[in-house]
Amino acid sequence: MNQDLRREREAASFNPELLTHVLDGSPENTRRRREIENLILNDPDFQHEDLNFLSRSQRYEVAVKKSASMVKKMREFGIADPEEIVWFKKIHLVNFVEPVSLNYSMFIPTLLNQGTTAQQEKWLLSCKGLEIIGTYAQTEMGHGTHLRGLETTATYDPETQEFILNSPTVTSIKWWPGGLGKTSNHAIVLAQLITKGKCYGLHAFIVPIREIGTHKPLPGITVGDIGPKFGYDEMDNGYLKMDNYRIPRENMLMKYAQVKPDGTYVKPVSNKLTYGTMVFVRSFLVGEAARSLSKACTIAIRYSAVRHQSELKPGEPEPQILDFQTQQYKLFPLLATAYAFQFVGAYMKETYHRINEDIGQGDLSELPELHALAAGMKAFTSWTTNAAIEACRMACGGHGYSHCSGLPNIYVNFTPTCTFEGENTVMMLQTARFLMKSYDQVHSGKLMCGMVSYLNDLPSQRIQPQQVAVWPTVVDIDSPDSLTEAYKLRAARLVEIAAKNLQNEVIHRESKEVAWNLTSIDLVRASEAHCHYVVVKLFSEKLLKIQDKSIHTVLKNLCLLYCLYGVSQKAGDFLQGGIMTESQITQVNQRIKELLTVIRPDAVALVDAFDFQDVTLGSVLGRYDGNVYENLFEWAKKSPLNKAEVHESYHKYLKPLQSKL
Amino acid sequence: MNQDLRREREAASFNPELLTHVLDGSPENTRRRREIENLILNDPDFQHEDLNFLSRSQRYEVAVKKSASMVKKMREFGIADPEEIVWFKKIHLVNFVEPVSLNYSMFIPTLLNQGTTAQQEKWLLSCKGLEIIGTYAQTEMGHGTHLRGLETTATYDPETQEFILNSPTVTSIKWWPGGLGKTSNHAIVLAQLITKGKCYGLHAFIVPIREIGTHKPLPGITVGDIGPKFGYDEMDNGYLKMDNYRIPRENMLMKYAQVKPDGTYVKPVSNKLTYGTMVFVRSFLVGEAARSLSKACTIAIRYSAVRHQSELKPGEPEPQILDFQTQQYKLFPLLATAYAFQFVGAYMKETYHRINEDIGQGDLSELPELHALAAGMKAFTSWTTNAAIEACRMACGGHGYSHCSGLPNIYVNFTPTCTFEGENTVMMLQTARFLMKSYDQVHSGKLMCGMVSYLNDLPSQRIQPQQVAVWPTVVDIDSPDSLTEAYKLRAARLVEIAAKNLQNEVIHRESKEVAWNLTSIDLVRASEAHCHYVVVKLFSEKLLKIQDKSIHTVLKNLCLLYCLYGVSQKAGDFLQGGIMTESQITQVNQRIKELLTVIRPDAVALVDAFDFQDVTLGSVLGRYDGNVYENLFEWAKKSPLNKAEVHESYHKYLKPLQSKL
Repeated sequence: MNQDLRREREAASFNPELLTHVLDGSPENTRRRREIENLILNDPDFQHEDLNFLSRSQRYEVAVKKSASMVKKMREFGIADPEEIVWFKKIHLVNFVEPVSLNYSMFIPTLLNQGTTAQQEKWLLSCKGLEIIGTYAQTEMGHGTHLRGLETTATYDPETQEFILNSPTVTSIKWWPGGLGKTSNHAIVLAQLITKGKCYGLHAFIVPIREIGTHKPLPGITVGDIGPKFGYDEMDNGYLKMDNYRIPRENMLMKYAQVKPDGTYVKPVSNKLTYGTMVFVRSFLVGEAARSLSKACTIAIRYSAVRHQSELKPGEPEPQILDFQTQQYKLFPLLATAYAFQFVGAYMKETYHRINEDIGQGDLSELPELHALAAGMKAFTSWTTNAAIEACRMACGGHGYSHCSGLPNIYVNFTPTCTFEGENTVMMLQTARFLMKSYDQVHSGKLMCGMVSYLNDLPSQRIQPQQVAVWPTVVDIDSPDSLTEAYKLRAARLVEIAAKNLQNEVIHRESKEVAWNLTSIDLVRASEAHCHYVVVKLFSEKLLKIQDKSIHTVLKNLCLLYCLYGVSQKAGDFLQGGIMTESQITQVNQRIKELLTVIRPDAVALVDAFDFQDVTLGSVLGRYDGNVYENLFEWAKKSPLNKAEVHESYHKYLKPLQSKL
Repeated sequence: MNQDLRREREAASFNPELLTHVLDGSPENTRRRREIENLILNDPDFQHEDLNFLSRSQRYEVAVKKSASMVKKMREFGIADPEEIVWFKKIHLVNFVEPVSLNYSMFIPTLLNQGTTAQQEKWLLSCKGLEIIGTYAQTEMGHGTHLRGLETTATYDPETQEFILNSPTVTSIKWWPGGLGKTSNHAIVLAQLITKGKCYGLHAFIVPIREIGTHKPLPGITVGDIGPKFGYDEMDNGYLKMDNYRIPRENMLMKYAQVKPDGTYVKPVSNKLTYGTMVFVRSFLVGEAARSLSKACTIAIRYSAVRHQSELKPGEPEPQILDFQTQQYKLFPLLATAYAFQFVGAYMKETYHRINEDIGQGDLSELPELHALAAGMKAFTSWTTNAAIEACRMACGGHGYSHCSGLPNIYVNFTPTCTFEGENTVMMLQTARFLMKSYDQVHSGKLMCGMVSYLNDLPSQRIQPQQVAVWPTVVDIDSPDSLTEAYKLRAARLVEIAAKNLQNEVIHRESKEVAWNLTSIDLVRASEAHCHYVVVKLFSEKLLKIQDKSIHTVLKNLCLLYCLYGVSQKAGDFLQGGIMTESQITQVNQRIKELLTVIRPDAVALVDAFDFQDVTLGSVLGRYDGNVYENLFEWAKKSPLNKAEVHESYHKYLKPLQSKL
């Protein structure tokens, strides 16, 4: 093991294994996760190709190979539990993506959620056996988050009892679905259903796109890859154009809405139920944000412990860069954020499952809040994580820019999260809609429960939002609970400002929609403050459940750092509301510096506790052992440009120029 | 032309051509720039290969070919003026980089600055004729910004009158120099000079690394590519390891320091003069930041004018996304920043040339301030631009993530600016050192001039920095001059806080260096506030020089938006110092919304004025004409994955799995 890392680990104030159990949920979960990961790590078939050295076409090929081996191995090992599949895939792929994944993550679940029993019987086995390789085609070139704008049509023909699918415009071409370009032979296509001359909105259809056996595109289908992207090199995100393409009536997923053989449309009982998948995916993405950020922190903090640079004291050896206050200030608030998001991710998962059970029993009452929370938290955590991964990368200096660090891949594969599954600003506005509705309900005398219960205490009947020193609280900057109160007051104030500005615009504008648009900056700000409060609250509450004293102490320090860093960054909000005084803000800045010093000896152990075995594989800078520079040199030698001593382009282009002289 | 863009252009309140002249410095500059650009655009030899579709090795080859054709064309057209070379290269390369560039940007200039007349005579023609393809090897695996830590040695052997070059450790291997991996045959190597048993610090040596003619690495030289990176795919950033490698004494650049044949070291008259190149490069990077940000804004704003999405008013056609307040709030402050940085870039260039002339006449008095300013502004503008390019990309939603947008390439080729040529945090601390020195000088009775003259007015003798309402100013939020005063007060206050905290730490700590480290968060914050003030000041002053009324009006609105957006983002700083009141901050937020509406009709004309002909080539989303979606579809079809209807990996890996069922 690297000497610096050994020293860091020996100096830690706590046992990281215990913290790993907290993160996994239980010691048993940790044990099982490692067991699954080791199936791969100890498997002689498992090879870790470094995709960084390959062209896109080669990367795609390796990814298909990995997809295939993964399917085989999961069959072999009998891994079927969704959580275990995630563990298995993560360690198998090491920061990369795989083209068959949508068959399992989207095609099969949609079939299960929206297909009739007969449809499931007909299709499911073929999907599981990969005779059908499915994907999910929703987004079009012209429309993403705004689903109602989708243009693809499915027109029912009662003569033949078929749907005729069409992509009537360039903008209606399906665009982006993963695995659509080359890999899949079927897609669940979202299209505007037209029957008996009337459009009934979006419905899902199972569409064969390639011939089973030859894998050739079927007549009427134009399908291909949408071209190179920032990341997701291994994924054949695809396009799909359909020209009078006919599918049998039975290919419409008919668990809820139906089209009878004669073309009669039968509408579903509730529209809310189709929310489910969306809410699930967004909740899941919060955990993914936590994971990506934790990985980036692992690499940056380990590297900062190993990298020696510059002078702190003249004549002494070069210090670890982790000893520079500015480096700590870059990384430790992000580490605290990673922990915060880990706990939020776990909460979202639990809450989703709890509410999903309620829904199963017909109780939809908590769905609106969950929907609003999932939207906002997806946006809040992904924006923060997005910037934070880049901050981690740049904290590694030049070496962070090299693919040797693994950080560019983490970034480019994470960053789509800000724009997919609901663009973040749109998500924040969805949360704002819930907040405004709740605000109105409070004002019409209803008591709110859940995360927005603070709106019940709004002093808005009594005072102007801009007025100072009206809050009853004196904030104790060493208490997570007290800081949670401060965040709550900030959220309450910003929700109130947005609501009042919205009311004001409604009076002066031609329509509610125009007023909404002209308040949307305030609305987004209110949602962000609400989400920030939720994160702080969940982190503080998590502390109460930690038994081990040493773990409690380090987590409390991280929680305080998370809270205080946010106060410092958004000092204006806390000052403006009179929530905190100017001298308190000065104290906050001082306290942050102290916390950096307190956390410093535990920094490496805190990232060890994330227990990412794949970081070791995917990042030269994040490895556990050996000399980082020797590893780096060995890695670089494998660069494709190093294959020949002299690159042929020299003889072709440069030598002729030289000989001219 | 696209109908939306035509409508936008017709609605503009000013003639963008006049603004282009302002940006170029004069109508004559605009004319000449376009003339040079058109040499390429109208040249049948000029082909715009889309490097996005190529593997790294292919990209390198195309880049070498482009390098070669560029050298030929510049010879043919007689382009030699440095500024004109920059114009020529930009349009030739379209956001990509080229491996021979360091011969011109680093090797030749260093030879001219640090070589004796005899050395220039010996080497210069060969460099210009590309018999010598040179690069500049400074950074090592173990040391970048901290130059004194470099480990490469050049030990003089008076017996043979040679220097013996060695890379004594793994960390001493030269790492990162552009063009070093495969392209160059010579490098100027920075090494610790040792003669007569004593080390005299870093000096520059001309080192042959490959044999002219065969291009094979010379014995004793280990050279290669450092491997794939986030961007700079076309560039063979390289490594260089030297083992007892001998070069003649005459290969040491001896204009300043010298080693006599017997090994006697003659030290240079002044060390300050070697600053020059560093300061020049950093000043130049400020202009590059402006350019990259302007380009990103051009693409994002044009696309936002063309993209229709969602509903503002029920039943009406989908609006341009540029009509959403949140989209304006994302993009217009960045557009204002792009203009601000354009003017700062021009100022840095002018100032550099002015001070450089002074230096030529022996007057070094302004060098320390320029050095501090260049360091801080390089960091300030590159950090801001870095985040802003990504904000532009994400403002384009999913399509921003595709290479069709051109934005990922702009980002990955810009982002190294934050860590190279002096890592940004280190740069901010260099500026802080100057600020602290100036602060001390003011306190010992000296009057400061230049950008830090505000320190003369510090009320620190009289009051505590945290005290409220002591500034004599009432800020007028509609006046750029008044806002400049507000930024000045903020900078003064944060410089003072840093200085006092530093003094306090000095009293309590074992050494000045430890105290410095423990104040470094405050020091960076002070430098940022100082740089922010400089930007605001330069933008405000620029307004005074604009004659045309319509241009003055749009620029004043952009300047106000830049100032107010900064106030809103850093509201805590303005409140804490009592510089502005809470109700003023509320007014600022309201005024920002109004300015968005005012700027909206001019947004497209404002990016047109940047006049980037290469944006048209490098970005499907940023094109002037045609249907963006049709262009996108055409582009995607060229994806290498679309070459074959069925990818071979299907038959190799997926089909066998399917047939098992």
